[in-house]
Amino acid sequence: MNLVAQASPPEVFGTRALAGELFDALKAATGDGVGITRASYGDGESRALDIIDAKARALGLRTERDAAANLVVTLEGTEPDLPCLACGSHLDSVPQGGNFDGAAGVVAGLAVLAGFKDKGFRPRRTLKLFALRGEESARFGKAYMGSSALFGLLTPADLAVNDTDGKVTLGECMRAVGADVDRIERGEPLLDPTSIAAWVELHIEQGPVLVARDLPIAIVTGIRGNLRHRVVECVGAAGHSGAVPRWLRHDAVFATSELISHLDHHWRTLLERGRDLVITAGVVGTDPHEHAIARIPGRLRLSFELRSQSKETLEAFYDLFLSECRLIGEERGVEFRFDRRVESPPAVMDAGWIGLLQAAARALGLPDEAMPSGAGHDAAVFANQGIPTAMIFVRNEHGSHNPEEAMALDDFLAGVAVMSAALMEAAA
Amino acid sequence: MNLVAQASPPEVFGTRALAGELFDALKAATGDGVGITRASYGDGESRALDIIDAKARALGLRTERDAAANLVVTLEGTEPDLPCLACGSHLDSVPQGGNFDGAAGVVAGLAVLAGFKDKGFRPRRTLKLFALRGEESARFGKAYMGSSALFGLLTPADLAVNDTDGKVTLGECMRAVGADVDRIERGEPLLDPTSIAAWVELHIEQGPVLVARDLPIAIVTGIRGNLRHRVVECVGAAGHSGAVPRWLRHDAVFATSELISHLDHHWRTLLERGRDLVITAGVVGTDPHEHAIARIPGRLRLSFELRSQSKETLEAFYDLFLSECRLIGEERGVEFRFDRRVESPPAVMDAGWIGLLQAAARALGLPDEAMPSGAGHDAAVFANQGIPTAMIFVRNEHGSHNPEEAMALDDFLAGVAVMSAALMEAAA
Repeated sequence: MNLVAQASPPEVFGTRALAGELFDALKAATGDGVGITRASYGDGESRALDIIDAKARALGLRTERDAAANLVVTLEGTEPDLPCLACGSHLDSVPQGGNFDGAAGVVAGLAVLAGFKDKGFRPRRTLKLFALRGEESARFGKAYMGSSALFGLLTPADLAVNDTDGKVTLGECMRAVGADVDRIERGEPLLDPTSIAAWVELHIEQGPVLVARDLPIAIVTGIRGNLRHRVVECVGAAGHSGAVPRWLRHDAVFATSELISHLDHHWRTLLERGRDLVITAGVVGTDPHEHAIARIPGRLRLSFELRSQSKETLEAFYDLFLSECRLIGEERGVEFRFDRRVESPPAVMDAGWIGLLQAAARALGLPDEAMPSGAGHDAAVFANQGIPTAMIFVRNEHGSHNPEEAMALDDFLAGVAVMSAALMEAAA
Repeated sequence: MNLVAQASPPEVFGTRALAGELFDALKAATGDGVGITRASYGDGESRALDIIDAKARALGLRTERDAAANLVVTLEGTEPDLPCLACGSHLDSVPQGGNFDGAAGVVAGLAVLAGFKDKGFRPRRTLKLFALRGEESARFGKAYMGSSALFGLLTPADLAVNDTDGKVTLGECMRAVGADVDRIERGEPLLDPTSIAAWVELHIEQGPVLVARDLPIAIVTGIRGNLRHRVVECVGAAGHSGAVPRWLRHDAVFATSELISHLDHHWRTLLERGRDLVITAGVVGTDPHEHAIARIPGRLRLSFELRSQSKETLEAFYDLFLSECRLIGEERGVEFRFDRRVESPPAVMDAGWIGLLQAAARALGLPDEAMPSGAGHDAAVFANQGIPTAMIFVRNEHGSHNPEEAMALDDFLAGVAVMSAALMEAAA
């Protein structure tokens, strides 16, 4: 990986050594032979929290576990009644995942707090680092459990879900690591959103943009929301592949191909006009019970997902999608049928914080590129509580959720430097 | 179903009664509760041959079983040394199939021969009706076994294939119904192609064209050959559906959709220019081991089939297909990979016989529409032996290979009348 040719930003307090030590310790404690496994509310996650907890205390910082069993590290401000500045990320992982997804943000937060303490900077506002649990949906089918619990957003139904092995529920696992499940089950907020002046989260980029554009970091403008259908079914008519001419066909594969091609054209047009949008049909297939090489496919099922930072763009493109389905359906004598539409709203990052982070990056001689986050993050939960929220992406190769994720330490240090500078300015 | 408004053609010798009786008897003897089942070289097929055999003898015609265990019904001509005129079709069926696919051509042939005998018409050339076995590929994976055996075209490998239950081989089943498997295994022709002046086969249309165009019958111009890949694989790169922008995607579903859409446009262009072509991608799917709603699909597999009466059109379109795969592959950073190309050549119907059948149809006040056969038939085997070959299609609703296939008796009588008139002229 080529690093951008520029002066290295000043290193915050021995971050290089601290980060190297912590990433190594996390990997050693939670390696599974292939990647690392820190199951949400499981042993690996707890070991990771313990490692950060011990290091924070060794660095002279105060630590505690909150009522949702997240680790909280505090550097008290001179005016502790002011809303605090919070930072952090999650420590759980998918099975056989990578060492940086989540952990990078926690290590970054610890480096910032330790740096402030080391240089004797006493902020006006209290700074808190949250090492959250349960961000990944891999174990319980639900994401952002640790941050959701803090704001009373986990339902009894969520807590009753079994893990992938079907042996224990989320509620049981949370209780086992010390969470106050009774309060959580009642939907009681464990943390007052107005007590938090900002949430700042550093995270590896889970896509390839920073690698492709040769940028070490970027400032996140928003977290894409999505609209989904798990299943769109195109229903035409099966028939003998040799005996039915084109004008009498109702071919579900040709109809759906035309649909996707049209949507691809519209997508490109919207991108040219500056809209934020990605479209995916990740699961596609003819019916194994009736398909055959010599049979015109009468049915095709596909999943359909739109993501955008803009709810307006999502809705506008969704209308376009429905309109194309109708037009192509009429033209080809097929019908597109839809299951329930599922949606997750976009989360907007705070404009003031985006500006603060960009100014910090420029002051450090770093690029101040802004980009959307396509993946979801705990930051979206904080943002949707009305808390001014910001994110820093760090370049990462090979995507995330796999053992090959690769973040260069120099890129990480750049991200920490920007975060530190912005938090220092906001806390002062 | 609306019949065309026209004078009914003269009925050949009580064909209506004969056909009604035989179709009822076949259905009663081989019904399976859902449709009819006359497995190739199995009991149902043998019962069907016996029914036709007994009726032919009752009508005063000579019957025998040939060395491939097909039933042959003969009306001897006055010059028996002349090459004979042969007609017929097959009596086997797919499991839970319809009563007319194949059987209609056998009943038609019997009606023609019985009609000639009844009216005392003594042809110069001998007429032979073949009630063939083993046309359907459902049981042994191979089609046209009964006609192929006659021309020494079954290989030892073909004969060694197990049936779908895996219990008996084709060779064992052929031997059990009386075929001379030793000669067949040696590839010995059982029938001299030069002894046959023509093969005329009536068959239900297996597509919807005659219903859509409101025509009772049509004269077949040729049997489409095909080019196939069982598996074309589009290989791109998987990725997070939210985190990878369009310009960095290598989406196998979008690439394949573009491919199919382009081919569809080229197909329409060729049809406008009068080429004969159908294209099908009957089996399509992302990889169940790695696909997910939130994952850009890195792989898609599809089957690909072209059919045309013209080998030149097949080859030209196949080149276009490869060219599109290459272009789209380059543009989108995906690769299309192909398994072995499998082909089956088109069979051209005899121009003289097409003219004879069309003239007969016009003389009877029937439409003389010509159309290709998209499905394969025993007629292709005869044609590819150099035997002048012709086919008559009879309108049929709901396609074939299912219990809903529906041929109106009036349409069948029209087909028989045309066949009878043409054979009478050729035999005289």
